Amino acid sequence: MTAFDAVEVIRTKRDGGALSDEAIDWVVGAYTAGEVAEEQMAALCMAILLRGMSADEVSRWTGAMLESGSRLDLLGVGRPTVDKHSTGGVGDKITLPLAPLVAACGAAVPQLSGRGLGHTGGTLDKLESIRGWRAALTPVEFDRQLRDVGAVICAAGDDLAPADKKLYALRDVTGTVEAIPLIASSIMSKKIAEGASALVLDVKVGAGAFMKEADSARELASTMVELGEAYGMTTVALLTDMSQPLGRTAGNALEVAESVEVLAGGGPPDIVELTVTLAREMLGAVGLGTVDPADALRDGRAMDVWRAMISAQGGDPAAPLPIARETCVVSATSSGVLQRLDAFAVGVAAWRLGAGRSRKEDQVSAGAGVVMHAKVGDSVTGGEPVFTLHADSADRFHRALAALDGAYDVGPGPARRVPLVLDRIGG
Amino acid sequence: MTAFDAVEVIRTKRDGGALSDEAIDWVVGAYTAGEVAEEQMAALCMAILLRGMSADEVSRWTGAMLESGSRLDLLGVGRPTVDKHSTGGVGDKITLPLAPLVAACGAAVPQLSGRGLGHTGGTLDKLESIRGWRAALTPVEFDRQLRDVGAVICAAGDDLAPADKKLYALRDVTGTVEAIPLIASSIMSKKIAEGASALVLDVKVGAGAFMKEADSARELASTMVELGEAYGMTTVALLTDMSQPLGRTAGNALEVAESVEVLAGGGPPDIVELTVTLAREMLGAVGLGTVDPADALRDGRAMDVWRAMISAQGGDPAAPLPIARETCVVSATSSGVLQRLDAFAVGVAAWRLGAGRSRKEDQVSAGAGVVMHAKVGDSVTGGEPVFTLHADSADRFHRALAALDGAYDVGPGPARRVPLVLDRIGG
Repeated sequence: MTAFDAVEVIRTKRDGGALSDEAIDWVVGAYTAGEVAEEQMAALCMAILLRGMSADEVSRWTGAMLESGSRLDLLGVGRPTVDKHSTGGVGDKITLPLAPLVAACGAAVPQLSGRGLGHTGGTLDKLESIRGWRAALTPVEFDRQLRDVGAVICAAGDDLAPADKKLYALRDVTGTVEAIPLIASSIMSKKIAEGASALVLDVKVGAGAFMKEADSARELASTMVELGEAYGMTTVALLTDMSQPLGRTAGNALEVAESVEVLAGGGPPDIVELTVTLAREMLGAVGLGTVDPADALRDGRAMDVWRAMISAQGGDPAAPLPIARETCVVSATSSGVLQRLDAFAVGVAAWRLGAGRSRKEDQVSAGAGVVMHAKVGDSVTGGEPVFTLHADSADRFHRALAALDGAYDVGPGPARRVPLVLDRIGG
Repeated sequence: MTAFDAVEVIRTKRDGGALSDEAIDWVVGAYTAGEVAEEQMAALCMAILLRGMSADEVSRWTGAMLESGSRLDLLGVGRPTVDKHSTGGVGDKITLPLAPLVAACGAAVPQLSGRGLGHTGGTLDKLESIRGWRAALTPVEFDRQLRDVGAVICAAGDDLAPADKKLYALRDVTGTVEAIPLIASSIMSKKIAEGASALVLDVKVGAGAFMKEADSARELASTMVELGEAYGMTTVALLTDMSQPLGRTAGNALEVAESVEVLAGGGPPDIVELTVTLAREMLGAVGLGTVDPADALRDGRAMDVWRAMISAQGGDPAAPLPIARETCVVSATSSGVLQRLDAFAVGVAAWRLGAGRSRKEDQVSAGAGVVMHAKVGDSVTGGEPVFTLHADSADRFHRALAALDGAYDVGPGPARRVPLVLDRIGG
């Protein structure tokens, strides 16, 4: 490969120019190999954030990230493979009921997930509250479970898009996480490497999401859909509301319990609605559009796959879930209808209670989190509980309560309802 | 000092906000102390380059750089102190005759200079072609020479604006050299630390200069003048032409010889004009505006100070200057008037002949360089020399000749003359 000069590549983007295919291949490869310095990539990321990238540049950048690692081959699975990715929100446990549900309907769902950092929880952290469950699988275990059970939620190996791992750590400390081309290529290089034939993206919008505005969420969604299609993966994105949390819980074991309720045919209506909507998209994307996932929730087939999936990874689906040692109830100061429930505030409260981590090396508490007794549009009575906080130690409550200060409004008349699914892109 | 979060500081500038005084003090100090990482400062520098800085921000940033090191105290010198800085050009040897000339007129000139990197030569490299001359002085030697001789040109100590040293090395490899607020604060933090009571800036504009356009040069000049005044230093900037080289030589010993011609009352008219103009500005800035520097050139007083200045630093002003072993003549292919002589091309040729360095650790050749037999507006005869190249080894000529390909135009009628001094800012 031709050697480029890192400073020339940075200058080109800095001055608003487009990077050539060869320059992108070189800079991503050389950075991964340690030949382009961290400070040079940091300057380039900031230039990308402020100058943007064309569709062609983002596509090539994603390809270069893919090239940095291995790519799974799922052809031996014997059924259509479909993946889902959420850009992250508060109370977003949808993957937990969704993966077994879609598997119960005939597709295979390979879900390589991450841990939480900051105010949104991580899928692996949630599942680790189940006794015995382990996130790390060997490639052989992964293949076998995907073939036999049809659903795997596990940790990504180190060889999956290593460029992304290095680049994400850099962006995190240099104020360059928010660049849409870099977010899109980060997500999509991993999802394409996972090798599923289709992908459904759940792009969150609102206070509790990374994207606060619909315009930027739509731009991110379109960029990712284009990338997926460019790499031969059927890709659809839904823009969904994250102004209030999903469901009634935010916290690891609390969210597992709520997911099991959904798999048992109950659970909060928003979780059920989004799970079924995403399942329909996933099934439709792999030619199984005639199968109705709502049936598989009702008749227990999704629950059967859940149990098999948890057991296959050493977990005991029947074991009681951990419960935090201390609780604290927040009561409403007036009566009326809940007009607003701030997802970000609830996420920060759950994080401060111990459900999330500030640094990668932190431990999370399985039982900690927030239970919401009302969602937007529900009636609230003065003196009755609005939140119950759960933590392993009572000294966690003070800062969590501070986060919840002003997190909700109670008013007279009916609340303004925001639809759960705001838009659909691609397909 | 309050601790800030580096990522928050980066984000503020990235999103177009102004950095608070406290944030600037913290980030510059913490970076110098190694507590803000290179990649974080790189991202911040790129954000500054693309988002800019207000006058207040640049002033505070400069102050924070100043705080990182020591500041000279020149009060014991016994005469008004005045400094000069050029942003760098090809054939720009003005400091050599200027410092002794201004000293001969009654001011003291403390000139802490640098070495060349890239296509513009360094003042210290030029003086080092004089037998025995040494750039490094102790603080005691510096003070004594400034008091006794009135002029010192020497290397800056490591404790002069160490933040700038670290930051400049980072900017050099991250494509962030070109940020005007960072250029201005880099130059001015060093010049303010030198402690002179007045400063005259020679801001170069044109093909051979860092600033190719008058608008950006004027912006840089205004920013530096404001900074100088804010820190109590009388500051004036001249915008001067660098479309063609200054004088008739580019190269270390070649430029010393040309400077000595000027000090002897001869030399190329553009060098004489710029030296006298800058000397008038420097003398005017310290209340010596009634002294005419042209007299001191004519009557040999400036030459006397030159000899004393060189001798004081161990140099032999009477020793013959080094001569390169090989020469190569470039002849005109047609007759007419020289319409254009590209300063950048001549600078690159001199550099490739051995006069400059690519890396800090490279040695320079004392004798190497380019002699120009014609300047813009001069008559040229086909077959007669336009350039003579000097190098220690004939294998240098090939790449120098390539740099000079298309470097000049010969045409019929008179050439369009550009004034040497384009503008004056401040004062």
